[in-house]
Amino acid sequence: MSLSDDLALAHRLADAAGEAIRPFFRARYETDYKSDASPVTQADRAAEAAMRAILEKERPQDGIIGEEYGRSREDAERVWILDPIDGTRSFVAGRPIFGTLIGLTQAGWPVVGVIDQPITKERWTGATGRGTELNGKPVHARPCRELSEAILASTGPQYFPDCTGEHFSLLARDCRDTVWGGDCYNYALLASGHIDLVVEAGLKLHDIAALVPVVEGAGGRMCDWSGDPLTHDSDGKVVAIGDPARLDDVLEALHAGHEHH
Amino acid sequence: MSLSDDLALAHRLADAAGEAIRPFFRARYETDYKSDASPVTQADRAAEAAMRAILEKERPQDGIIGEEYGRSREDAERVWILDPIDGTRSFVAGRPIFGTLIGLTQAGWPVVGVIDQPITKERWTGATGRGTELNGKPVHARPCRELSEAILASTGPQYFPDCTGEHFSLLARDCRDTVWGGDCYNYALLASGHIDLVVEAGLKLHDIAALVPVVEGAGGRMCDWSGDPLTHDSDGKVVAIGDPARLDDVLEALHAGHEHH
Repeated sequence: MSLSDDLALAHRLADAAGEAIRPFFRARYETDYKSDASPVTQADRAAEAAMRAILEKERPQDGIIGEEYGRSREDAERVWILDPIDGTRSFVAGRPIFGTLIGLTQAGWPVVGVIDQPITKERWTGATGRGTELNGKPVHARPCRELSEAILASTGPQYFPDCTGEHFSLLARDCRDTVWGGDCYNYALLASGHIDLVVEAGLKLHDIAALVPVVEGAGGRMCDWSGDPLTHDSDGKVVAIGDPARLDDVLEALHAGHEHH
Repeated sequence: MSLSDDLALAHRLADAAGEAIRPFFRARYETDYKSDASPVTQADRAAEAAMRAILEKERPQDGIIGEEYGRSREDAERVWILDPIDGTRSFVAGRPIFGTLIGLTQAGWPVVGVIDQPITKERWTGATGRGTELNGKPVHARPCRELSEAILASTGPQYFPDCTGEHFSLLARDCRDTVWGGDCYNYALLASGHIDLVVEAGLKLHDIAALVPVVEGAGGRMCDWSGDPLTHDSDGKVVAIGDPARLDDVLEALHAGHEHH
C-alpha cells in the first residue's frame, strides 16, 4: 500500500465523516432529532461508524482505534486512529472550529494525518516525507525570531491538570499573546503559519496521532514538555512549534518555575 | 429615517467592511503587503474608512464613533458605532470567528446592531422591536432551566481585571461548561441558541453597542454585573444571557464571593 493510497483513503474517510457530521451542527437538542443522545454524540457516532465501515471494507487487516467505538486489531502494523469530533465544546457552542482527526500509524509512528473542518470545508493533510497541504495547496509554518513575538494558543485553562497550568503561565508571560479555545484547529493554523505555538496538557493518543504529520510536514515540530517525541507512553503534555529553532526557549520557559514545585 | 432604512444601510456598511477585510485575512505580514502596519491593522483601517465614507455620504448629520478613526459629531441624536474587527487576536491567529460590529444608537440607546463574520459570511442583525436574524432567517436564544445546564463563554481569562476573574470562576463553577475564545461571535451564537451565557469584563462602548439589539431581539438580555442596563457610563462588565429567567441566578453566583473582598 503506498502513501498515496493511504492519503486518498484518508480523504474518503474525511468526506464520509463530514457528511455524517454536518446535519447535526447547530441542531437543536430534543427538537430536531428524536433521540436520547445529544446532537454532538450522535454526530460523533455517525461519523466514526461511517469511517469504520470504509476501513473494514478497504483495509480489513489494519487496526482501528476510535474515540466512540473502541479498538479493533490494535496490535496491527498499521493502525487508523479516529477522533470524529475533536473540540466537542466548540461543536456544542456552534463554532466552526472543531475538527475531524484521522491518523494512520505504522509500527507506532504517525505517518498520515488529516485535520478536517467540515463546516468551513478546510482540510489539512500531512504524510511522512510530504509537505502539508490545506485543500490541496502547500502550507508552511512560519519563522519566529524570538519567543516574545510568538502567538501561543491553547484550548482552555481548565485543561491543565495539577500544576501544569502554572508552567503554562510562565511560558505565556514570555510570549506576545495567548489565544484561547480552538482544539485541533490551533495545530492546523500553526501548520498554515498563523500561530507559532500550541501548548496543552492532558491530551490522548487519538488527539495527537493525526496532528504530528500535519505539523511536521509544514516544517514544525511536535514533542512533549521535555522535548521528547510523542509516543504511546507520553503523558499527554504536548508542544507544537512552528519554528523548531525556538523549541529550547519554549522548554526553558515551561520549566523556569520548576524549582518552586 | 425608518428603522428599515437604517437596517438596509447597516447591511451596506457590513458589505463594505467585509470586502475590505477579506484580502487581509491570513495574509502574511511583510511578504504579501508592503506596509509598516500589520495585516490586521490594515484591515481594521480599510474597513472603517469604507464604512465612514458611506455614512458621510448617506447620513451627514449622524455621529460616528469608530475604533480606528475616532469620533465625529458624537453629540448627534443618532450615532453609528463601528468596530471593524472585534476579536483581533482571532483574526491574527487565522480563526474565522472575529466579527465586524455596527451599532446605531439613538439618544444613547442601541437601536440597530449587526455582528458580521465576513469569512464564513454569517450576518446577525437586530433592531428595536424586531426579531434578530442570521442571514435573513429568524433566530432565538434558547431556554435554560437551570444554571447547571448552561454553557458559558468568555474570550479569555486574561481579560478579567482585578478580582473580576475570581467572580467569574465562581459563576463558571456553577455552569455546565466554559468555552474560551470567541469575542463578539459568542454573543451571536447566544442569539442563535447555542450558548446560554457570555460574561466578560473590560468591554468598551464600541464592543457593546452592536451586541445589545442582536441579543435582545433574540429574546436574551444584556446588562452589567449588577443587573443594570448598559450605558455610556458602564464599567465594562457585561452579562449576556439567553434566558432572562436565569439572570438572578447568574448575578447571585457572580457575587457569591463578594464578602471575601
